[in-house]
Order: sequence, then structure tokens, then C-alpha cells
Amino acid sequence: MSTPDTIYGWHAVHALLKNRPEAVRLLYVLDKKDPKIVSLLAELSAIRLPVEERSRNQLDTLARAPEHQGIVAVAQAPKQPHDDFAVWLAEQNPEVTRLLVLDGIEDPHNLGACLRSADAFGVSAVIVPKHRGSPITPTVCKVSCGAAEVVPVFAVSNLVRTLAQMKEQGFWLVGLSGEAKQTLGEQKLPPKLALLVGAEGQGLRQLTQEQCDFVVNIPMHAKYVNCLNASVACGVALYALCQPNLK
Amino acid sequence: MSTPDTIYGWHAVHALLKNRPEAVRLLYVLDKKDPKIVSLLAELSAIRLPVEERSRNQLDTLARAPEHQGIVAVAQAPKQPHDDFAVWLAEQNPEVTRLLVLDGIEDPHNLGACLRSADAFGVSAVIVPKHRGSPITPTVCKVSCGAAEVVPVFAVSNLVRTLAQMKEQGFWLVGLSGEAKQTLGEQKLPPKLALLVGAEGQGLRQLTQEQCDFVVNIPMHAKYVNCLNASVACGVALYALCQPNLK
Repeated sequence: MSTPDTIYGWHAVHALLKNRPEAVRLLYVLDKKDPKIVSLLAELSAIRLPVEERSRNQLDTLARAPEHQGIVAVAQAPKQPHDDFAVWLAEQNPEVTRLLVLDGIEDPHNLGACLRSADAFGVSAVIVPKHRGSPITPTVCKVSCGAAEVVPVFAVSNLVRTLAQMKEQGFWLVGLSGEAKQTLGEQKLPPKLALLVGAEGQGLRQLTQEQCDFVVNIPMHAKYVNCLNASVACGVALYALCQPNLK
Repeated sequence: MSTPDTIYGWHAVHALLKNRPEAVRLLYVLDKKDPKIVSLLAELSAIRLPVEERSRNQLDTLARAPEHQGIVAVAQAPKQPHDDFAVWLAEQNPEVTRLLVLDGIEDPHNLGACLRSADAFGVSAVIVPKHRGSPITPTVCKVSCGAAEVVPVFAVSNLVRTLAQMKEQGFWLVGLSGEAKQTLGEQKLPPKLALLVGAEGQGLRQLTQEQCDFVVNIPMHAKYVNCLNASVACGVALYALCQPNLK
């Protein structure tokens, strides 16, 4: 993801321009006279930003998707803020109290929605395995509504080692599993915790689950379905686990 | 939705065959010898169900989507269980304690995920305005993972009148709104309640919100995003509002 890519959609581009204006090479818009665009460009007048108008069809092609909402930026995709997660975590401690580990979420819409929830509930960083699950694509950025620009995402090559590093820094690892005996909301919450959410369908891998200090289920009373959508489950667990300890 | 349509995806077709086998005209599968299909057909041997094999490309065409998971049924789409919601509700009372009103959810993936959460959290029926938001499409059924077969969905032509009928039957109307002063989880929950969730972006319409007994926000601590994905917000609110009173 180090080559320039496109970021599209109003919130995704707005967050990009607010947080990483230097990463933007060019902005394509449907209509320079659109009041939202005029206001955005006025805010950004200090940045030398080439802006060009394109037709809806041309924007569809540039974004490789029709959901661009009339705005497409050519920019570097977001990067993780440090090569070494453990070093970053040690530097950030003790401010960091909530982390989210996504163990191989495959659908870019689910990953984007998880990042959006992570920002909403004050998660300091999201950790994903480097070689499993969706990368941070333009679709992920669009669906995250700008969260991909403000929540650091670390793609780590050895997730088990990273989980051990979290424990060394005082984090409790809480796994989400439909088979867990404990129910979400029943526990006294530790001051520092990382929530672990598995992939769609499979859930947490065995090796990942074995690292958890405890696993919890989301209590359900279904007639038919046996689990929630992955991004909904992630949102529910973040709501339950991240609210009480936030200032 | 009264003409035959396709229902695709493993859980959606499984729930269809379990709940409405009479609605199925024909089943197309990628491989009749697939153990999951063999087992499903053995369970359904009492039903005279024509089953035909088709290639992946043919299934893509039949489903009009590539996410069919090798199984496509030609069947009537789910119908609401009664023409008149008020009559149905009066008949079902007092068993019904939780309802969900979706005020114009437009994205079929969000609507499907909301139905899945509705079943997961024991909601008895979902109410939508007839002329706003997504209808119950094959995509909605697929994403709902079978919930569209077991949770009745009522499309009503006058939502305000329907909300008044709920109140007459003893339901409290709880709206979800980012601008609410009360926070989700702070209230003593009434024995019967309907959760009202608005459309993506716009939220609840003014006229809908005015009917609510109270409105609540989901507490957030975001750096950038100002709200959750609509289906995540719906799931979080159902978790918080539907858990405590379930047996």
C-alpha cells in the first residue's frame, strides 16, 4: 500500500485532508462550485492542492467504485505510525487503555465498519495479521468514514508475539467467541484491555484464542441466526467493553 | 415482492427450506454431492423439491450476484404475516415485548444486518415505511443469514399511525439519535419497547422522532467519526435495550 492510491467519499477525503494533507497529490471533484467543496477548499487554502473537475463517469473510473460521492483524492494510503508495534505501544503507554485486534476480517465493508466503531469508542490502535484478511483498501477507507485516517492500524507478521507484547505492557486480552461460557457485560473490566474479534464465519483462530485471558459471548435469544454480523459483533463488544473506563 | 424471486446463500436458503418449504419451486446447486447439500436434502426428503445442478457462472446469473455460496432457490420472497400490523400486534400481545422500527434504511447490506441483529436479540417484528428505504431483496435475505425468514417484517403505509398503535398496545417508543441528551444504558427499561432507528446519514425523520417517548444517543469518544454505521448502531442499541428483559 505504499504506491499512491485513490481515497474517495466525502468523510474519507475530508479526514485525509485534515490529517494528512501532505499525502494528497491531486483532488478530483464533480463540481468545484458545490458549496461543500467550496467550503472545504477555503479551509485548505494554505495547502497547494491541485483540484480538477471530472464527470461522474470519470470519477467512477478513478475510484473504481460508484460510491465516491463526487470526490476522489489521489493520495498515499494510510501507513502504520511505527514499524514496530511493541515500540509504539511502549512509547504511548500509559495513555493507551483500549486496543482492538481483528483476526482476519475478510470483507472490506466489515473492516471499514470495525475501524469506524474503533474510533467511535476511543480505541487507540487496531492490530491485524499481515497476511490474513482484507488490507486497508480505498473501500475500507470509504466505509470507515474517515476513521482509517485517525486510528492507527498495525499489520503485524506474528500476531501471537504481538499479543504477548500487549500482555507485557499490562493489557488483558478479551476474546469474542460464540462458544464462550462467560457473557459480555458480566466481568469487572481491567483498566487496560485488547478486544480480539475473529473472521466472518470462522471466528477466532485456536492459536489466537489460547492467548486470551478470558473469552466472552454476546448473549442472544435468536429463533434462527447463530451469530451477529462481524462488524456488528465488534461494535457491540466495543460498546460494552470500552464505555465504562473512558473519561 | 409477490412474484417468485431467488433466495441465495447457505443460511438464507437453509432458513427458507426450514420455515417456508412450500414457497420453494426449484433449488439450484453447484454440486449435489457436496456433503452439506446431501445432508440438507436428506433432511428435506419429505418435500418434493426439484434440485438441479448448475455451473458457478450459471448460478452467478441466477442469483444476479456472486455471493450465492453454490446454492440458489427459486421461491416467493418472504411476506408479512398479516395485512394489518395493528391486528397482528393485538393478537400477539402480551408475548411481544420488543419491536424494531427502521425508518428508511437504504443499503440492503445494512437492512440485512439489522434483521440479523433483530433475530439475535429476540425482536418479535420489524416495521418499515412502505415507500422509503430498501425493500426485502435477495441481497437483504442473504445478508440477514436467514433472519428474513423468521422475523416478520411489516411494510406500513403510515408509520406515524403505526407508532400510535404501538403506544395503544403499551409500547414505549425509544428513538436513537446522535443529538439526544440521554445516553443509552442510563434508563430504566419499560417492559415493552420499540426501538426506532433512522436512515444512514439523515437519522430519524423529525415527524418520527416527535412520536418517541424518549430519545437516546450511543456514547462515543471519537477523534473523527460522528456516528456509527447504521447497522452497528442498531445492533448496539438492541444489545443494550433488549438484553435485560429477556427471559
